[in-house]
Amino acid sequence: MRIDIITVLPEMLEGPLGCSIVKRARDKQIVEIVIHNLRDFSLDKHRKVDDYAYSKGAGMVMTIPPVEAAINFLKSQREYDEVIYTSPDGILFNQKEANNLSMKENLIILCGHYKGIDHRIREHLVTREISIGDYVLTGGELAAAVITDSIVRLLPGAISDETSALSDSFQDNLLSPPVYTRPADYNGWKVPEILLGGNEKLIDEWKHQQSLERTRLLRPDLYRKYLEESEETLT
Amino acid sequence: MRIDIITVLPEMLEGPLGCSIVKRARDKQIVEIVIHNLRDFSLDKHRKVDDYAYSKGAGMVMTIPPVEAAINFLKSQREYDEVIYTSPDGILFNQKEANNLSMKENLIILCGHYKGIDHRIREHLVTREISIGDYVLTGGELAAAVITDSIVRLLPGAISDETSALSDSFQDNLLSPPVYTRPADYNGWKVPEILLGGNEKLIDEWKHQQSLERTRLLRPDLYRKYLEESEETLT
Repeated sequence: MRIDIITVLPEMLEGPLGCSIVKRARDKQIVEIVIHNLRDFSLDKHRKVDDYAYSKGAGMVMTIPPVEAAINFLKSQREYDEVIYTSPDGILFNQKEANNLSMKENLIILCGHYKGIDHRIREHLVTREISIGDYVLTGGELAAAVITDSIVRLLPGAISDETSALSDSFQDNLLSPPVYTRPADYNGWKVPEILLGGNEKLIDEWKHQQSLERTRLLRPDLYRKYLEESEETLT
Repeated sequence: MRIDIITVLPEMLEGPLGCSIVKRARDKQIVEIVIHNLRDFSLDKHRKVDDYAYSKGAGMVMTIPPVEAAINFLKSQREYDEVIYTSPDGILFNQKEANNLSMKENLIILCGHYKGIDHRIREHLVTREISIGDYVLTGGELAAAVITDSIVRLLPGAISDETSALSDSFQDNLLSPPVYTRPADYNGWKVPEILLGGNEKLIDEWKHQQSLERTRLLRPDLYRKYLEESEETLT
């Protein structure tokens, strides 16, 4: 898999995509991630990529030509499944979408900055608009990092223990059960008795029960989805 | 405002929190952000901070002692409004929560890693659990970066033009209107006529109409919230 990210702030992405699990996945060539500086595609001698918005009002807007040049340059080299734009008004990103994108071959992610990008880019060049949540960030870079991180960890081989990703929250619309490690008693804070007993069947039941209970309490919306999809009749 | 972030991967956060608007806000002393390496608080000679989970199953769990030591060290120096833990099963972060947190004095953000943190930390030391969305990341670092970024840009003086943050998406449950910049005609892709006319009153009406329309189409859930809160009777 290959992910190309177009940004005005490459240095904002190098840390998040150069560490830990994502770094190892790149080193093992499970994924190729290339960060492009949008300014390299500016035709302006000052490498300008933005201009004043039409109508009064705060903020600068990213112009069409450099973005189009960057996308065209990439498209001339290979086919892309999606040109993703990260924006608070895109469709809400979730684990299902992460699973879906993790099965693609080549992706472009365009990071918006300033007050956004010229809307014509969204109409003509972007194929998918994704929001990572209902909040506003200083730019699309962190959203691109979040999307990339969540996709990469799903790629086969990215996480050493393959069961790890499968037991994550959301894979079955349930939150994870609580986890504990040693010591069993820390100044009176105790690990639930059942986990110390070693009866794996009972422990598995307990974990499932905890997942159900936590989801019902903390995320009734997810719990409804779980009930619908599993067609269970728990009350 | 001061934000302390506790993590096993400081290098993952330095880029996102050392660039652009957040960097300027730190330089102008609008916000103090301190990143702490959890391993500095390990009592183990190998600076270990994790251990095997109770019961079989994939993944390592962050242990209590280093986390408690880090939090206690910080609390001995000043009072904190919240000890935030970033987790997929926390409450969903949104712009209202960003506004709320931006009015606090001192925050600790604890980044989970591996399979999570010992649940007793969540029960006894954490005061607020936040999820940035229904997806799983390789760790809590990007979530901490997202929360910090969204808070910092709301602090007075962080964004040069103060009207900018007020006209964002979500501040009134509406998505932003589309934005455009020059050229007015790019190979046949045209800017809407009304924006070129210069009648600011008409333009403002058009923008509001576009916001309503985009929200209704793209995010019917937000649109309902908007209608409820504004008590309008649009149909």
